[in-house]
Amino acid sequence: MEKFDLHILGCGSALPTSRHFPTSQVLNVRDKLFMIDCGEGTQMQFRKARLKFSRLHHIFISHLHGDHCFGLPGLISTLGLLGRTAELHIHAPQGTEALLAPTLDFFCQQQPYRICFHEFDDRRPTLIYDDRSLTVTTIPLRHRIPCCGFLFAEKPGLRHIVRDMIDFYSIPLYELNRIKNGADYQTPEGERIPNDRLTLPAAPPRRYAYCSDTLPLHSVANQVEGVDLLFHEATFANPDAPLARHTFHTTAAQAADLARKAHVKQLLIGHYSARYDDETLLLDEARNIFPATRLANELQCIAIGKD
Amino acid sequence: MEKFDLHILGCGSALPTSRHFPTSQVLNVRDKLFMIDCGEGTQMQFRKARLKFSRLHHIFISHLHGDHCFGLPGLISTLGLLGRTAELHIHAPQGTEALLAPTLDFFCQQQPYRICFHEFDDRRPTLIYDDRSLTVTTIPLRHRIPCCGFLFAEKPGLRHIVRDMIDFYSIPLYELNRIKNGADYQTPEGERIPNDRLTLPAAPPRRYAYCSDTLPLHSVANQVEGVDLLFHEATFANPDAPLARHTFHTTAAQAADLARKAHVKQLLIGHYSARYDDETLLLDEARNIFPATRLANELQCIAIGKD
Repeated sequence: MEKFDLHILGCGSALPTSRHFPTSQVLNVRDKLFMIDCGEGTQMQFRKARLKFSRLHHIFISHLHGDHCFGLPGLISTLGLLGRTAELHIHAPQGTEALLAPTLDFFCQQQPYRICFHEFDDRRPTLIYDDRSLTVTTIPLRHRIPCCGFLFAEKPGLRHIVRDMIDFYSIPLYELNRIKNGADYQTPEGERIPNDRLTLPAAPPRRYAYCSDTLPLHSVANQVEGVDLLFHEATFANPDAPLARHTFHTTAAQAADLARKAHVKQLLIGHYSARYDDETLLLDEARNIFPATRLANELQCIAIGKD
Repeated sequence: MEKFDLHILGCGSALPTSRHFPTSQVLNVRDKLFMIDCGEGTQMQFRKARLKFSRLHHIFISHLHGDHCFGLPGLISTLGLLGRTAELHIHAPQGTEALLAPTLDFFCQQQPYRICFHEFDDRRPTLIYDDRSLTVTTIPLRHRIPCCGFLFAEKPGLRHIVRDMIDFYSIPLYELNRIKNGADYQTPEGERIPNDRLTLPAAPPRRYAYCSDTLPLHSVANQVEGVDLLFHEATFANPDAPLARHTFHTTAAQAADLARKAHVKQLLIGHYSARYDDETLLLDEARNIFPATRLANELQCIAIGKD
């Protein structure tokens, strides 16, 4: 199965602790790396996770709070020092380029590569990335400032060739693409071999949704319906629900309730408030409502659709 | 003995590795914390070192390269979130305040405390801090951009009272300050007790010099003559001396040579280039010239004048 792996680089919130870095994740889709948020220390965690800078071309920033973007100047500088020439694309809310400009102008003047900013409208779901195998769509969230999550969706793959059958019918190589796309095969003798004798179904396309920071939203539940993995912030435990509401965050119970309503396959919670010494209480609270919940943790790697 | 402890938070150079954070140190002088440089990740390392943000009032920035200052926005935000009200003083090269302004204006609008910038002239040694027990003086360095090191010097302390002698002569409490300052004591009977029977000498004042980033300089050797501990950058090993020269850095051998000429008591090297997987070669190179050399390492704490 092609890679669709999520690496957690940081899963703390605004106040980093001795255990958690601020938010950053990397989704590895067939060895292309997609970074989601870039809190302070991201580049160090990226190295610790043994990921390759040369495979990173797209960074998605949910919102302009420091714990989600203070790692950008350091990462951008480092890529320059490493001699990068490939463009780097930063997908972020409106205003990001202007905000970063003075810092980049001063510290990264002689950058050998180009940074392309793509600023999105945070008010409606928007397709912001599209390649042969993947789309990325924004998920409008509700936080104290404009904020979006991201839905990463694999495109349906090709059917898998059954090698033995291809050999049996001596099917020429140039027919294989058509067969992978679902076509039947006609032998030189005129016999029609139905596609399902020659192929196995493609692996089901996988989807990953990232939602942080936000109040719990019905619209999110609709948009992430049935995803293989939902990362949802669970900054607080339910006894702190008033504080969550006040700061436009979500509790573990609320995240679990949303996961249940959205019929997601698995829920990953994170963005923990520094007030909890042990996140087990968040996990227990969520599992009571949605058993397929797990806790995010630094340098964890999840093979989505497999684990 | 009063605290005069150096904490290493990061001792890597521009390219962070999985082993080293970019530069930051904290000098603890009698529980007042003085931060020197603030690379990305400093606030996380500060917590790991179990230091207290409430005791931090002064930050000294050597120069405006990212690996020495990209941790400032995160640290400044965090102090605000913790409800700080005390002023924070940032001593830094000219231009620092203007450079940070757009970032702080955007991310730290509702900061509950004031930041006071004190920008220094990098061309001549300047007294930039002075309190009852400590002075800090800049050490002009030579790097690709304006850069200064810092000399932290304890002021001479008071002599130590010998409790038994005070009791023996029934010396009243109000006399003690004069005696600590070196005065003799006259008994009610008119007998003069010389100070050195009543006191022991004060602990010798300690000095710490921080020099990074720079070419090796004679002027530095003069200014740090005899210090208890010299931190000097040793970005490269001597076989890479041409590269050190080209990038305005120092080799381990050059740092050791400078330490020897300056008769410092101990040399601490750091700011390691990412090219060395193991810094033992830097240590060996330096110790050949100046045996009292040690390697800086993250979360190390050195009791200066004691260790």
